[in-house]
Amino acid sequence: MRFADRLQAAWTATNSLVCVGLDPEPKKFPDQFRDAPGGIFEFNKAIVDATRDLVCAYKPQFAHYAAHGAETQLEHTIDYIKTRAPQAIVILDGKRGDIGSTAEQYAQEAFERYGADAVTVNPYLGRDSVEPFLKHADKGVIILCRTSNPGAKDLQDLNVGPGRKLFQHVAQTVAREWNTAGNCMIVVGATYPEELADLRKHTGDLPFLVPGVGAQGGDVAKVMAAGKTQAGTGMVISSSRAILYASSGQDFAESARKAATELRDSINAHR
Amino acid sequence: MRFADRLQAAWTATNSLVCVGLDPEPKKFPDQFRDAPGGIFEFNKAIVDATRDLVCAYKPQFAHYAAHGAETQLEHTIDYIKTRAPQAIVILDGKRGDIGSTAEQYAQEAFERYGADAVTVNPYLGRDSVEPFLKHADKGVIILCRTSNPGAKDLQDLNVGPGRKLFQHVAQTVAREWNTAGNCMIVVGATYPEELADLRKHTGDLPFLVPGVGAQGGDVAKVMAAGKTQAGTGMVISSSRAILYASSGQDFAESARKAATELRDSINAHR
Repeated sequence: MRFADRLQAAWTATNSLVCVGLDPEPKKFPDQFRDAPGGIFEFNKAIVDATRDLVCAYKPQFAHYAAHGAETQLEHTIDYIKTRAPQAIVILDGKRGDIGSTAEQYAQEAFERYGADAVTVNPYLGRDSVEPFLKHADKGVIILCRTSNPGAKDLQDLNVGPGRKLFQHVAQTVAREWNTAGNCMIVVGATYPEELADLRKHTGDLPFLVPGVGAQGGDVAKVMAAGKTQAGTGMVISSSRAILYASSGQDFAESARKAATELRDSINAHR
Repeated sequence: MRFADRLQAAWTATNSLVCVGLDPEPKKFPDQFRDAPGGIFEFNKAIVDATRDLVCAYKPQFAHYAAHGAETQLEHTIDYIKTRAPQAIVILDGKRGDIGSTAEQYAQEAFERYGADAVTVNPYLGRDSVEPFLKHADKGVIILCRTSNPGAKDLQDLNVGPGRKLFQHVAQTVAREWNTAGNCMIVVGATYPEELADLRKHTGDLPFLVPGVGAQGGDVAKVMAAGKTQAGTGMVISSSRAILYASSGQDFAESARKAATELRDSINAHR
């Protein structure tokens, strides 16, 4: 199935635009997972079980596994999502970016080794660094555009032409040149609703991955007003810490479910 | 030891600016390593043994390990370099770039898990994405500036001010603002000697990581004329495929040594 259809099916099947970011931080885990072998996978399992009917996507953030030598637990987590939440898109958030021959290796890592449905990619190296991902029409290629962090402005807001900022240039390049297989998305931080609105205006129905609601402070009403398409979709809205660590007690899974439900409902109220 | 001193010591001890890029591609290995368990590490060991007195640095490229699930072999490779070539800088080439809290995890991965001396970083997310690396004054932070690939021009050559391209802006930001601990380098492709000369002119003695000699076609004489400092150093010049796969036969190690020697001598003739 083409990625665009897969994403549409995920939105429809779950009636949700929510993505849970799986960013394990063992220090924040409830006791029984904190120092346990395989604790990251066990924690993730509990989160997936608690949220699987509420979300259109899961987004494991690579660094949080790599820092702990937990690649095998990342593999197991993705396998588990495929079994328990087969409608959900799995986004490997690695923000890869390298020369073409190396990007081939990253595509192999994301799509073959881990079996992810989509991967985040950094555009700084240009088209040939993205091409090895783009050619997989059944996989999503999610290109950084306007990120959610404070430093986003440092390069992304530079003017690269009259009234045209770097992030706008990236968005238009993706929409007009790189999205030939219909498998591109762009990353736009929830923390910048004005930029989000501008990008929606100039990219048609291009789907956005929107991190930054929750712990980073993005506002759901503003995000929806700025970024939704006419169909009331067009975004995969990701929250990590506010769901995963809604409670550090034994009610963590229940609290995660509650937080994910509230986010879904809050989003759906504005669709 | 501060990173700047560590790099200087590596240049002096080895009388070499050569870096061997450790980009394992099992398909190109001699038979005995190709499908063998631990074959990547065994191949790397042979390359390190054959080149350890000839080079100032080794640069394992992360994707080539991640694609094969070979993180443990990457750990072993770095440990082996530390033992057999203790003067050499180990550069983990992962081109990391993420929001601050995630960049902390990548710094932990590079410097604690793998014990690398330096890491490559993508500047697209701005200062707070680089800060978690910069604060390690004993570690090198090597920021992508003008990369060696054909698509480098797509974003990096955009004008962000009168006569000022994005890659020039990045270089100046690194030199003037990010390099407060003296631990920054920038990546400049050997395939673009004019850009290299321009960057040397505007960044003083800032050290450059220069990939792209060898298989990518960069010319040593042009690179040296463009990029060396007054001291005849200032660059870590990286070659991967032209050394690793100089021969696919049983003389691969000997051929790698020959290729590394020729590159070192060719560089030194222009210092």
